[in-house]
Amino acid sequence: MNIEPLPDILIAPVIRAALAEDLGRAGDITARACVPADARLTADFAARRGGVVAGLSVIRLTLRELDADATVDPLTEDGQTVPAGTALARVSGNARAILTAERTALNLLGRLCGVATLTQDFVEAVSGTGAKITDTRKTTPGLRQLEKYAVRCGGGINHRFGLDDAILIKDNHVAACGSVGEAVRRAKAFAGHLVKVEVEVDSLVQLQEALAHDPDVIMLDNFSLGDLREAVRIADGRVTLEASGGVSLETVRDIAETGVDVISVGALTHSARVLDIGLDAVGN
Amino acid sequence: MNIEPLPDILIAPVIRAALAEDLGRAGDITARACVPADARLTADFAARRGGVVAGLSVIRLTLRELDADATVDPLTEDGQTVPAGTALARVSGNARAILTAERTALNLLGRLCGVATLTQDFVEAVSGTGAKITDTRKTTPGLRQLEKYAVRCGGGINHRFGLDDAILIKDNHVAACGSVGEAVRRAKAFAGHLVKVEVEVDSLVQLQEALAHDPDVIMLDNFSLGDLREAVRIADGRVTLEASGGVSLETVRDIAETGVDVISVGALTHSARVLDIGLDAVGN
Amino acid sequence: MNIEPLPDILIAPVIRAALAEDLGRAGDITARACVPADARLTADFAARRGGVVAGLSVIRLTLRELDADATVDPLTEDGQTVPAGTALARVSGNARAILTAERTALNLLGRLCGVATLTQDFVEAVSGTGAKITDTRKTTPGLRQLEKYAVRCGGGINHRFGLDDAILIKDNHVAACGSVGEAVRRAKAFAGHLVKVEVEVDSLVQLQEALAHDPDVIMLDNFSLGDLREAVRIADGRVTLEASGGVSLETVRDIAETGVDVISVGALTHSARVLDIGLDAVGN
Amino acid sequence: MNIEPLPDILIAPVIRAALAEDLGRAGDITARACVPADARLTADFAARRGGVVAGLSVIRLTLRELDADATVDPLTEDGQTVPAGTALARVSGNARAILTAERTALNLLGRLCGVATLTQDFVEAVSGTGAKITDTRKTTPGLRQLEKYAVRCGGGINHRFGLDDAILIKDNHVAACGSVGEAVRRAKAFAGHLVKVEVEVDSLVQLQEALAHDPDVIMLDNFSLGDLREAVRIADGRVTLEASGGVSLETVRDIAETGVDVISVGALTHSARVLDIGLDAVGN
Amino acid sequence: MNIEPLPDILIAPVIRAALAEDLGRAGDITARACVPADARLTADFAARRGGVVAGLSVIRLTLRELDADATVDPLTEDGQTVPAGTALARVSGNARAILTAERTALNLLGRLCGVATLTQDFVEAVSGTGAKITDTRKTTPGLRQLEKYAVRCGGGINHRFGLDDAILIKDNHVAACGSVGEAVRRAKAFAGHLVKVEVEVDSLVQLQEALAHDPDVIMLDNFSLGDLREAVRIADGRVTLEASGGVSLETVRDIAETGVDVISVGALTHSARVLDIGLDAVGN
Amino acid sequence: MNIEPLPDILIAPVIRAALAEDLGRAGDITARACVPADARLTADFAARRGGVVAGLSVIRLTLRELDADATVDPLTEDGQTVPAGTALARVSGNARAILTAERTALNLLGRLCGVATLTQDFVEAVSGTGAKITDTRKTTPGLRQLEKYAVRCGGGINHRFGLDDAILIKDNHVAACGSVGEAVRRAKAFAGHLVKVEVEVDSLVQLQEALAHDPDVIMLDNFSLGDLREAVRIADGRVTLEASGGVSLETVRDIAETGVDVISVGALTHSARVLDIGLDAVGN
Repeated sequence: MNIEPLPDILIAPVIRAALAEDLGRAGDITARACVPADARLTADFAARRGGVVAGLSVIRLTLRELDADATVDPLTEDGQTVPAGTALARVSGNARAILTAERTALNLLGRLCGVATLTQDFVEAVSGTGAKITDTRKTTPGLRQLEKYAVRCGGGINHRFGLDDAILIKDNHVAACGSVGEAVRRAKAFAGHLVKVEVEVDSLVQLQEALAHDPDVIMLDNFSLGDLREAVRIADGRVTLEASGGVSLETVRDIAETGVDVISVGALTHSARVLDIGLDAVGN
Repeated sequence: MNIEPLPDILIAPVIRAALAEDLGRAGDITARACVPADARLTADFAARRGGVVAGLSVIRLTLRELDADATVDPLTEDGQTVPAGTALARVSGNARAILTAERTALNLLGRLCGVATLTQDFVEAVSGTGAKITDTRKTTPGLRQLEKYAVRCGGGINHRFGLDDAILIKDNHVAACGSVGEAVRRAKAFAGHLVKVEVEVDSLVQLQEALAHDPDVIMLDNFSLGDLREAVRIADGRVTLEASGGVSLETVRDIAETGVDVISVGALTHSARVLDIGLDAVGN
Repeated sequence: MNIEPLPDILIAPVIRAALAEDLGRAGDITARACVPADARLTADFAARRGGVVAGLSVIRLTLRELDADATVDPLTEDGQTVPAGTALARVSGNARAILTAERTALNLLGRLCGVATLTQDFVEAVSGTGAKITDTRKTTPGLRQLEKYAVRCGGGINHRFGLDDAILIKDNHVAACGSVGEAVRRAKAFAGHLVKVEVEVDSLVQLQEALAHDPDVIMLDNFSLGDLREAVRIADGRVTLEASGGVSLETVRDIAETGVDVISVGALTHSARVLDIGLDAVGN
Repeated sequence: MNIEPLPDILIAPVIRAALAEDLGRAGDITARACVPADARLTADFAARRGGVVAGLSVIRLTLRELDADATVDPLTEDGQTVPAGTALARVSGNARAILTAERTALNLLGRLCGVATLTQDFVEAVSGTGAKITDTRKTTPGLRQLEKYAVRCGGGINHRFGLDDAILIKDNHVAACGSVGEAVRRAKAFAGHLVKVEVEVDSLVQLQEALAHDPDVIMLDNFSLGDLREAVRIADGRVTLEASGGVSLETVRDIAETGVDVISVGALTHSARVLDIGLDAVGN
Repeated sequence: MNIEPLPDILIAPVIRAALAEDLGRAGDITARACVPADARLTADFAARRGGVVAGLSVIRLTLRELDADATVDPLTEDGQTVPAGTALARVSGNARAILTAERTALNLLGRLCGVATLTQDFVEAVSGTGAKITDTRKTTPGLRQLEKYAVRCGGGINHRFGLDDAILIKDNHVAACGSVGEAVRRAKAFAGHLVKVEVEVDSLVQLQEALAHDPDVIMLDNFSLGDLREAVRIADGRVTLEASGGVSLETVRDIAETGVDVISVGALTHSARVLDIGLDAVGN
Repeated sequence: MNIEPLPDILIAPVIRAALAEDLGRAGDITARACVPADARLTADFAARRGGVVAGLSVIRLTLRELDADATVDPLTEDGQTVPAGTALARVSGNARAILTAERTALNLLGRLCGVATLTQDFVEAVSGTGAKITDTRKTTPGLRQLEKYAVRCGGGINHRFGLDDAILIKDNHVAACGSVGEAVRRAKAFAGHLVKVEVEVDSLVQLQEALAHDPDVIMLDNFSLGDLREAVRIADGRVTLEASGGVSLETVRDIAETGVDVISVGALTHSARVLDIGLDAVGN
C-alpha cells in the first residue's frame, strides 16, 4: 500500500469544526434523552460498497474528542481496496459518544474514501501507460489537504496545494503579459529556486513558444488526441507534459496512450461519489 | 423565487477559511509574477450548464476580501433556474484580486448550485403530489448551513441542522431504551416545548407502537411502497410521515404518490454534481 | 436527579477563554512569587449558602488546564439541592494550579448554581400545577448553553437556544406581516417539518386569530390572570400555551394555576444571584 | 461625565461571539419568514427604569455586523444617569438586521448598565468620605474588560484586571510562605518596578507585620468598624488601605467613614441587576 | 536559579501557530518520503555556543503536539548559564515527529536563549551597582510574554507587558496635556489604586516638575551621565528612577553607577542574537 | 524596485494579534488618561538610520484597526533604499489611535526593514557574480511569510516556506534511508510533479552519488571554497547548486565566486538588526 498518513495535527482541526457544527449549542439531545450515560457500545464502521480506504484516522480522532478512553482498532489501512461489506475499523467505548460521533466521522470518511475510489478508477484506467493521474484545486472548501491525501490513497499524485506553492500560468495571465513566452519569462524571474513553473497552452503554436522559455511543466489544455501526440513528439522529454480538460473515465486511457506524463482530473475531488459506509453495532 | 438569503455573517467565515487555504503563506505567486498590480478586469461568472442558482453572495464576499472596492453585479438571483451559458454575475475590479478569488468562489458556488439543482430535480419529480423533499445531516464537514441553504434554493425544506435542534430516535437509541414506545416516551419527557420529536421505525408494527406515544414525526425507513401506503392509512394525518432510505430520482415519485408528507434524500448533499461555472473575461 | 450532563466539548472552550482572560500575558504572578513550584494542596469547593448544584465539571475542566494530573472528586452531583456548608467537590494537585484556577472556576460555577437555584425556586412555587418553568434568550453573552443547562439542573425546561431553532413571532414581526394570522401563515410555510412555530399575542382577540392558523405554541404576553384563564378555556388543549411577561416568585403560582402549560421567566438567567462558593484548604 | 470609552477593538470580539451564539447555523428564521428583506425600521433603545448608561457602543457594533449601513445615533452618553423612559440611542436601518441584533445588544447593554448603576449606588453612598469604590475579579467569564469599564461608568475605580497585572497576596499564599511578612518580601523581590504589591490581612497584628515590609496596598479583610478605624490610625497614610468582605449598600458608608482609601465590592459585577432596556419601533 | 516558569497554557498557543506555519497544508513531505513511519530516534538539543537557557519547555510542548508519547528529559534548567556544547535536553520518540518538530522548537528556543543571554550580559555589566536591567515593549509581535520571560531568565526584570498594565507618559502625551505636571496629574486621577504611573522627562527641569506630582517612576530619557547623577541627587529616593535611551553594553555600567534604580534596554528583545542550538542524533 | 506586495489578507491577522497583545484587557490607559478623545495628530514614520524599506502596509493596517478613517500616505515604497532621516510614510488621524498603534507598527516594520536591509547587504556583496541570496526556515515564529517578503524586498529569493512545499533531504533523512542516492530516489518517487527535490550533501563523494539520481537542487553544506569550486565543475550546470553553512558578509563573496547558483543565509531572518524607526509628530 505504502501510503504515508497525514499527521493528526493536520486533520484534528477539521474534525473539531465538524463536530461543533453538529453538536450546536445543546449537543446530542437524542442520545442524552434515550441512552444511559454509562452505556457501552462496540460497533464496526463497515463499507456498504467496495472501494478504496482513505482517512481511517478520522474515526479515532472524532471519537476521542467525545470519549478520550474509547478504543479504535483499524481493521484495514489507508490505500487498501476492499469489497462491499468490509469492516474498516471497530470502535468500543461510551455508547453516547459513539452515536454522537457517528455522523461526523461518516461524513468525512465517506467523502475521502469516495475520492480515493474514483482516483483509483482513473489510475487503473491508465495502467501500464506511464501516465500519472493528478488532482486540481477544485476541492471542497476547507478539506483540500484531506482530499489531496485521499487522491494519494487512490494512487494519484498531487498537483498544487494552493496558489503559493507553484506557479501555474493560465490564459488570463498570458493576456496580462502579452504572450506565453513573456509570461513564462516573468514567472521564472519571479520564482525562487524551489518553485516550479507550469504554463497552460491551448495550441501547438503556444507549446512551441512555451518550450523556448523552458518551464518545468506545460499543461496542454483541451488538446485533441492528435495534438497531444504531436505535443509529446515536439517536447521530446524536455519538459513534463500535463493533459487537462474534460477528462473522463471514458477518455482517459486514450489520452494516456498519447504519451503525456500527467493527466489532471478535476472530477477526482469535485465529483467523487461518497462511499457508503455505515455503523453496525456488534455488542456492548 | 422567494428565497430568503442567509446573512453574510453566516457565510463569511467559510469564505475566509477557504481563501486562507488557497493563499497559503505566500499568496497567489502567479498573479504577482504575471499581472501588473494595477491592472483592471471585468469578468462574468457564467454557468457552463443549466441549473439552479444558489449562493451568489459567495462571489461578492470572496472578491471583497481581496479588493474592497470591487463591484459585483448579480445578474440572476438565488433560486432561479438558468440555462447553460447564463452569466450569473459580473465583477469588475483589480485584476489580480479577481484571478486570485476565482477558484475559491467557484469551488463554493459550484457546489451550492449543484446541490440546488439536484434538489430541484427531486422537487420537480414529485410535483403535484403534496410530498416535500428534505435533506439530511449527510453534508460536507464545515458547509452544512450553506448546503442546507442551497437545498432551500432548490425548493426543498430542511431537516435537522444538527444533533441539538430536534430529537431523532434511531435504531441504536431504541435498542438502548428497550422499545420504540419507551424511547419516544423518554424523548418527549426530555424535550423542551419547542423541540420536535421524530422516531425512525422499520415496520408497521413499530409504526403502531410509535403512534401510541404521539411523536411529531415518524420516519418510515426503507419501507416498501405497499407498506408506505399502509402507513399513510394507519397514521391518518395524526403525525407527519417521512419516507427515508435509498431514495433516487427513479423511485421518488412512486414514494411521493403513497401519500407521505416528506421524503428525505441524503444524495441532495452527499452526491450532488458540482455545477460547472467558469469565469469569462469581458474587458478591463 | 436525572440531569444529563453536557459533554465536555461544549464547556471547555468557555473555560479556556475565561482562563486566558484571567492569566493575561504573565500568568499568576502572585502564585509564582509566593508558592513553591512543587507545593501540593488539597481543598474543597464548598457552598457558603444552600442551593442547587449545576456545572460541577467546571472544576475539573478548569483545573486540568493547569495541572493535567490533578484529581477532582465530585462529592455532589448536578441537580442536587444542598444546604449551606456542603463540600461540592474535593480537588488535589499542584498548589499553584489550584490557586490559579480558583477564581475562574468559582466565577462560572457560582453563576451556574445561582441560575439553577433560582430556577428551582420557581419550579417549587408552581409545584403540583402542571405548569413548567422555562427560560428565555436573556442570557449572558457567551454562556447561553451553560446557563440553559443550569436551568435544567434546577428543574426547568429550555426555550429556544437561538434565533435559528424555532420560530417565535413577536409584535414587530406581526407589524411587518399585517396581522397575527398572516404572520403565522408565513412562518408555517417557511418552517421545515422539524421546526416549531410560536406566536406572541397580547389579547384574546389575537389569540383567536392565532388559533385559526394552528401554531405549535402561543405566548400570552402580559395577560391578566383572568385573561390567562379565558385563554386556557379557549385553546382547550389544541396548542401549548406559554405565559410571559413580568413573572416573579410572587406571581408565578397564580399564573400557573390558570392552567397554562409553560411559564417563561427571563429572571432565571438575567437576574439570578451568584451562589456563594468558596475554596477551603484541607491539607497538602 | 468624563468617561473614556474603550476602543471598539476591545468590544467587537465579544459581540461577534454573542451574535454567533444567537444566530446558530440558520440565522434568524423568524425575521426571514415574516419580515421583507428590504423593510426599513427606525427604533429607540429605551431604558424602562432609571440608571447609569454604560456601553452604548454595543448598539452600533452589534447592528453594524448585520447592516453595515445602519445609522446609530446615541442620544445619551456613557456615565450619564438617566430616568426611566429615556431613549438611549436611535437606530435606523434594515428591519431584519435591527430585529436580529436586538436581543444580543440588549443582553450586553442591559448588563453593563446594571453594573454601572449598582456601582453608582455604592459611590453615592460614600459620597464625601474620600473612599473610592472598586471592583473585584468576580466578573462574568468573558466579559471582564467590559464589566470593569461599566464600573468606571458608575464612578468606581478598577482593581486588578487579572492575575498578571498586580500581586495580591491572600491567605493561601501566606500559608505557603509561612508569614505575611515573608510573603510580602518574596512578592516585592519578584515584582518588576511597575507592578504593585497588595497583601490581605485579617487582623491588626498581621497589619503591623505587613506594614513592616512596605507593600503598596493592604487589604483589610472582614475587619470590624473598630478595627478598620484602628488600622487607619496605625497605617497613618503610609500605604493604601482597602476594606473588603461582605460590603453592602447598608454597610458601605460606615466602612467609608473609618477613613479607608478604597472599598472593594464583589457585588458590583457578580450581583448587579440587569437594567431593563427595550426596543421601541418609532417608524420605518 | 529560581526562575518561576510560565505555565504551559501561555506557551502552547504560540507553538501550535508556529507548527501550523511550518507544516502548511501537506506537512513534512521529506520525513514522510524518507523516514519509515515507525522509526525511532533519540537526540539531544545541544547549544553550539555558551549562553543562558530560557524556554526549555518549548521542546516538550512542540514535540508532544506531534508524538504524544515522546519522552523529553531536560538536562539543564531555565536561567542556567551553560558552556558551548552543553546538551540542554534529550528527546526520544518517533523519528518523523522529532525531525518535523526540530526547526519549530529551535527557532523559538534559540530566540529565547538569545534574549536571556544578552540580558545576562547587561546584568553582569552592572553587577554590584544596585541598578536593575529591564526590558521594553520593543518585542517580537506575538512573542511578548515569552521574550519577557526570557528577560527574567537572564536576570532582568520586566517593564510593562502592554499598554494596559501601567501608565507611561511620553512626550506626545505631555504635548497633549500642556505640561509634564498636568499629564501626571491626569494620569494619577485616571489610574486605579493598583496601577503605577511613570512619566518620561528629558531634562532636569521636567524632572523637578514631575516630582512635584509624585509619580511612581520617572524615566530619564537620554540624559547625560552628569544629568543622571544630578537627577539621582534631586530625587533623593522619593521615586524610582529609570534611565532610558541608547543604552549599550559599553555604556551601561557608567549609567548604573550614577545611582539610577532601573535601566531599560530595548536591545534585549529587538537585537538579541539567536543562540545557536542544534539537534544531535544519539541513537534510535 | 519591482517588489510585488503581499495582499493585506496575509498580513492583517499578524497585526491584529500583535495589537491584541499590546492592548491587553484595558487598552491604552495612558492615551485615554492624557489625550483628549477628539485630538488629531499628523506624524511621520521616519527611519533613524539608512536601510531598505519593507512592509510599509503595516502602518496602514495597524492604524486602520484603531481609526478606520485615518489617512496613511506612503512616501517611499517597499524595496527602496533610503538614507537616515527619511520619512517613510505620513499618517494623519485620531491622536489616540496613532499613539496606540505606534509601537505595534514600529515593532513589525522595524523588523521587516531590518531583514530587507541585511539581505541587501548580502545581495550587494555578491553583486556581479550570478549567485543569488536566499533565506532559510530559521524565521521568527508567526512571522515567516512577512520575513520572507522582506527578504524579497532586499533583493533575495525565497527558499521553502515550510515543510510541505518542497522536499529537502538532510543528514538525518539520509541516515534513515541508508544512502544519499536511496533518499533522493524515495523522494522523487514520493513527490508530485510540481514539487522540487533538494538534497544536502557534505562531501564531493555524496555530491556524485546525489547527481546520479537527478535532484532539482543540491545543497553543499559547509564545503570549503575549493570543494565548492570542484562541485561546480562536477555538476556542470545539470542541477542548481546551493551553498550553505556559516555564511557571513565576510565570506559570502568568496563563496559566490566559486560559481554556485544560490547561497542560503540563516542570518537574514534570525540575526537581522531591527531598523531604528521613530514616529515624529508634525502637526495636528
